[in-house]
Amino acid sequence: MKKLTLFSGLKQYTIAATALISFSCGPPGDKQESSTDTSNLSGTETTKGGDPLPSWNDGNVKKGLIDYVTAAAKEGAAGFIPVNDRIAVFDNDGTLWAEQPLYFQFFFVIERIKEMAPQHPEWKTKEPFKSVLAGDMKKALASGEKGLMAMMNATFGGMTGDQFDKQVKDWVATAKHPISKKAYTEMIYQPMLELLNYLRANGFQTFIVSGGDIDFMRAWAEKTYGIPPQQVVGSSLKVKYDSTGIVRLPEFAFLDDGPGKPVGIYQHIGKKPVFAAGNSDGDYQMLQWTSTNTAPHMEIIVHHTDSTREWKYDRGSPIGKLEKGIDDAPKYGWVLVDMKQDWKRIYPSDH
Amino acid sequence: MKKLTLFSGLKQYTIAATALISFSCGPPGDKQESSTDTSNLSGTETTKGGDPLPSWNDGNVKKGLIDYVTAAAKEGAAGFIPVNDRIAVFDNDGTLWAEQPLYFQFFFVIERIKEMAPQHPEWKTKEPFKSVLAGDMKKALASGEKGLMAMMNATFGGMTGDQFDKQVKDWVATAKHPISKKAYTEMIYQPMLELLNYLRANGFQTFIVSGGDIDFMRAWAEKTYGIPPQQVVGSSLKVKYDSTGIVRLPEFAFLDDGPGKPVGIYQHIGKKPVFAAGNSDGDYQMLQWTSTNTAPHMEIIVHHTDSTREWKYDRGSPIGKLEKGIDDAPKYGWVLVDMKQDWKRIYPSDH
Repeated sequence: MKKLTLFSGLKQYTIAATALISFSCGPPGDKQESSTDTSNLSGTETTKGGDPLPSWNDGNVKKGLIDYVTAAAKEGAAGFIPVNDRIAVFDNDGTLWAEQPLYFQFFFVIERIKEMAPQHPEWKTKEPFKSVLAGDMKKALASGEKGLMAMMNATFGGMTGDQFDKQVKDWVATAKHPISKKAYTEMIYQPMLELLNYLRANGFQTFIVSGGDIDFMRAWAEKTYGIPPQQVVGSSLKVKYDSTGIVRLPEFAFLDDGPGKPVGIYQHIGKKPVFAAGNSDGDYQMLQWTSTNTAPHMEIIVHHTDSTREWKYDRGSPIGKLEKGIDDAPKYGWVLVDMKQDWKRIYPSDH
Repeated sequence: MKKLTLFSGLKQYTIAATALISFSCGPPGDKQESSTDTSNLSGTETTKGGDPLPSWNDGNVKKGLIDYVTAAAKEGAAGFIPVNDRIAVFDNDGTLWAEQPLYFQFFFVIERIKEMAPQHPEWKTKEPFKSVLAGDMKKALASGEKGLMAMMNATFGGMTGDQFDKQVKDWVATAKHPISKKAYTEMIYQPMLELLNYLRANGFQTFIVSGGDIDFMRAWAEKTYGIPPQQVVGSSLKVKYDSTGIVRLPEFAFLDDGPGKPVGIYQHIGKKPVFAAGNSDGDYQMLQWTSTNTAPHMEIIVHHTDSTREWKYDRGSPIGKLEKGIDDAPKYGWVLVDMKQDWKRIYPSDH
């Protein structure tokens, strides 16, 4: 399968041309399965008395999470962690919300190009914009990385910070996922929402650390996850300050993926996390660095195993590839969360 | 007075060669005044019942601060601010701690060069290190910006994040200011400590936004100010992640000064502050950007007016120059804090 690497020299943030082409040609087979199929649900969806993780099935994973958090917050326990050190980091795409058939951020990019087209008559003849506007994703992607970067720069840069924030908020409020027909912010994982709340209730500070654009996520993360802008770490464009305020430049600055994740954490948080959650090899170094914490630490990998309620993918997937993470999980003690087995429901709307 | 601009194209972070030379030749006249002279103290140092700012003298400035914070935290008040938007930013050098006769960070640089010299025999013949080691600051600075950058890169880069953190902590624990003979962390401003606590007690999140190195400050800011690493924004070197963890590269990445301050805030906090405190023209754009907040906002400038208890300087000063800030304060409604008049004490040890 041909892959386009989004940013040269960094292999994690990849997009398969064929995935985009499949999308443009209609949903592929696996995605036609209903996300409301409840055949794999077990137990009840309602909160049991005092259960902090009601959407997690009983088992080693749930028990491990509860044991870890309980000890971390209990002074005198072997697993106790001083409250200031309770830093928990979460990947976003594929860990807190879905990421198939394409990182949701790219649906925004495509829609923005269509919206911006009237102000850019030159796009009628300029690739990759010409092909995006003609609905020919295959041809749009023929320009490779250079074309993808041009699309990102055109839609994420060249405006004030406030303008970009409004554009993302407007998009999130109205856009629907092409397969599920849900709003994108309805495709968040209910069990992970519960985990975020449970950690916060026990004195943890929860951060997003994602390869996605930092300000794209900030526009909706507080309302959606309860994670405020100052606790979002992500990739970024260069910005400058002038008489109009903050201006986003059409120039890439930082890729918060792979080895960039520990770097982003060091720069933004300034402290090694004690808890990390990811789902792909782009999270490998974040999990690895967290594993070197001398304080009690825990790392989990959300393993996409449920082809009925969500998507099933790992090693071979162009989006959210998980290979090194599975291979090295036993070595590091990383906990694999089996979505099919460990989660009672996937999305908040599931019953 | 000849000035050396530390980083080309950015004029705020300047050092007067003469200031350094004066320092190397012994403290200049103004600095010989005792910092324990209490002749300007008025009122009592002890906390009055319920006074959140006991080290501030009664007057318009203190009243303005209390009125602003009280309204911000009071639902239904005209000045109410939702708790998530209560973001307060503070410059560090000259705003939270002293900065004369030289930014304290540079005393660390000089000491590090002396400590590192045995591992760098080439410094015996290489400027500016040769002159630093010989105690000849005048000659050391003759190499200008290039020499200053070389000193910064040599002492702040080329080690792991953990190693740098330990070096700064060790230095802060033992180093003494050449004039006051106090530990540097004893030269923090008691009235500003009270203001930080008062804001936090009313739901504000307090951030440092400084031209100083972000990780230099993080090493002691939590213990000293109650500001955790994730709430420190500063200038930074490039870092990478490899098998040894986080490695600091001897390469400058970001200058958090002047127009860089709103940029640093946007990148790290992702939200426009409602409260900003600075003391020099390097804070001008941070104050200006905060002034454009549509929520109730307040900006203060710590004006160094006290030659007896601290240092007196503004327009002509090579360190902490304040000119545009004074000129434009009335236009923007920025509050000038007169240290001599508004502060009962300067340092925590003052009585």
